[in-house]
Amino acid sequence: MEPIATQQKQHVPRIYALEDIEKVTSLPSFQGALIEAISNGFVAFSNNKFSAAAIQTMGAPPLGPFVVAAAMPAKDYAAQTCVKSGYFQDNPYYVIKVGSGGTPWENAGLMQVYSQSTGRLAALLLDDGVLTELRTAAVGALAAKMLAPKPIRRIGIVGTGVQARYQLQMLEYVTDCREVLVWGRSAEKVDAYIHEMKQKGWLIKKAETADELLLQCELVVTTTNAREPVLGTTGVVPPKGALITCIGSDAPGKMELDVSLVVKASILVADNPPQSQERGEFQSVLGQGKKMLEQVVPLGQICQSKEFHRVPNDESLIIFDSSGVALQDCVVAQMVYEALINSEGQL
Amino acid sequence: MEPIATQQKQHVPRIYALEDIEKVTSLPSFQGALIEAISNGFVAFSNNKFSAAAIQTMGAPPLGPFVVAAAMPAKDYAAQTCVKSGYFQDNPYYVIKVGSGGTPWENAGLMQVYSQSTGRLAALLLDDGVLTELRTAAVGALAAKMLAPKPIRRIGIVGTGVQARYQLQMLEYVTDCREVLVWGRSAEKVDAYIHEMKQKGWLIKKAETADELLLQCELVVTTTNAREPVLGTTGVVPPKGALITCIGSDAPGKMELDVSLVVKASILVADNPPQSQERGEFQSVLGQGKKMLEQVVPLGQICQSKEFHRVPNDESLIIFDSSGVALQDCVVAQMVYEALINSEGQL
Repeated sequence: MEPIATQQKQHVPRIYALEDIEKVTSLPSFQGALIEAISNGFVAFSNNKFSAAAIQTMGAPPLGPFVVAAAMPAKDYAAQTCVKSGYFQDNPYYVIKVGSGGTPWENAGLMQVYSQSTGRLAALLLDDGVLTELRTAAVGALAAKMLAPKPIRRIGIVGTGVQARYQLQMLEYVTDCREVLVWGRSAEKVDAYIHEMKQKGWLIKKAETADELLLQCELVVTTTNAREPVLGTTGVVPPKGALITCIGSDAPGKMELDVSLVVKASILVADNPPQSQERGEFQSVLGQGKKMLEQVVPLGQICQSKEFHRVPNDESLIIFDSSGVALQDCVVAQMVYEALINSEGQL
Repeated sequence: MEPIATQQKQHVPRIYALEDIEKVTSLPSFQGALIEAISNGFVAFSNNKFSAAAIQTMGAPPLGPFVVAAAMPAKDYAAQTCVKSGYFQDNPYYVIKVGSGGTPWENAGLMQVYSQSTGRLAALLLDDGVLTELRTAAVGALAAKMLAPKPIRRIGIVGTGVQARYQLQMLEYVTDCREVLVWGRSAEKVDAYIHEMKQKGWLIKKAETADELLLQCELVVTTTNAREPVLGTTGVVPPKGALITCIGSDAPGKMELDVSLVVKASILVADNPPQSQERGEFQSVLGQGKKMLEQVVPLGQICQSKEFHRVPNDESLIIFDSSGVALQDCVVAQMVYEALINSEGQL
């Protein structure tokens, strides 16, 4: 019963806990560089230099439910795991992300960095989903950098969850504006958010209504899980030249903006235009033929175009919609891994 | 730049090196139980109690090549990584297997065991592909147990690679036969295989030709990577009531048996009949309409049927074809994980 053909010396991957990961991700130099790296990633994506496998989804139809479903009402069960895999051409690594969440599970996740030279696992990043939050926020900051009017007098944050926190954190790198209005459905959560953000130096106030926020902010970032539109339902429009960045509600059927507001935009930008037909803020206007898919500009094209700049007095309303693409996972995982290796070298 | 919402205490998965894994997989009690567990797994699979996600394949079309492709002739490049994910209903775990191989990579792989209760990674099994070899061999043994004539006077092994070693190892659990003929294209590898297997107690000899082997063995196991058929090309048939188990050549287009031999079988059995339309030994006869898919019996149905037994003097030629299904990975990963946990409890 001897093992057959055991290797003399096994390749052992590096394993990093969240604590290790946050040592590098909390550095301002890392966060600033992440926005730049994500920008480069979107350019490569637009040039077909990024490969992504079809996402595996477990725990949801057409596959069977996980065992936890048996212990709860069917209508509440929403646990699922997604496996997202991808890689850049001419890059040393490929990345597999395993994300899990949905009632009754806590959101969690990890990223796996593999070598394109050997196929082997180089590092397991036990990030508990933190890197997904960070890479999502980096796209919000990137969109603000490329598409927001200058100057921004006031930032509007819709939603008060974890991603609302990350968005403001990353916006520090792309704007000097520190004035913020926040709106959320829970007064308690709004107060907690305001308290926390004040401590981080933001001049932040509560908006009494979503309309008030929309009227007063040149940059609006939505981060909710809304199933019904929360912005634009009364016909109110934002200041001239505003950017609305939609980060939340990235599942099919979910939306944060009223269709009437999306229709008013001069420019629609998406992280992955084909994906915006089935999820995110543009699915209704595209489905109803009020805008054409060809009119949705890929973020990568904006990042690549040296000419794209807001001119003073540009009055276009721009809406940017992000539902997330695998390249963001690859970029952040590789950056974290290389920073960790580098920091070990310096010990 | 403080981390946002860091958890107080992080869940940390167990990481097992190959050395740990082989401590449990080398136990005869483990190997015997594995065959039984795989049998139960196939029964569950036949009853639609197993969910598998569509396989992700990276490094091969339609996705781009890995970076190593640039350093070699295009015709030699074959590196790819497959991500296979699945789970049983009413089971505590789900499993993700990442397997990599193909020129210029060494074959490698790992298995990840996740909790269906929390979604989180319970254990990372750094098995370097050994568990895939083992679970593949377990199916060969299971097929022999269910489908081979009794007694078997002689076992024929076609191929001299790692899987040829595992097949004999697992056959010890299901037959008393110790007489073996081996055939391979490389005389040197045949000699090495014979030398090794003799040390393990097998009464093993070299067959001069594949025909000689086919004529003399009631149980034939093929384990090659043949692109052209290696057995049955001259019209020779095996002894009455024989079982031919085909383990190798599981990629589309690859075959080990000549079509004329497959046509002669009374019973065709496959681990996953729909899969046998596009890969393995039955693809030609099915494609040419010489056999119908409905005639291919699922292994799970054989395992479930209490009535299926070879009767004495049964002269049917049975061909069993295995191209591998994800349930095998789930079964072996769970068994290894539980055995490791159990052995830790006993320290």
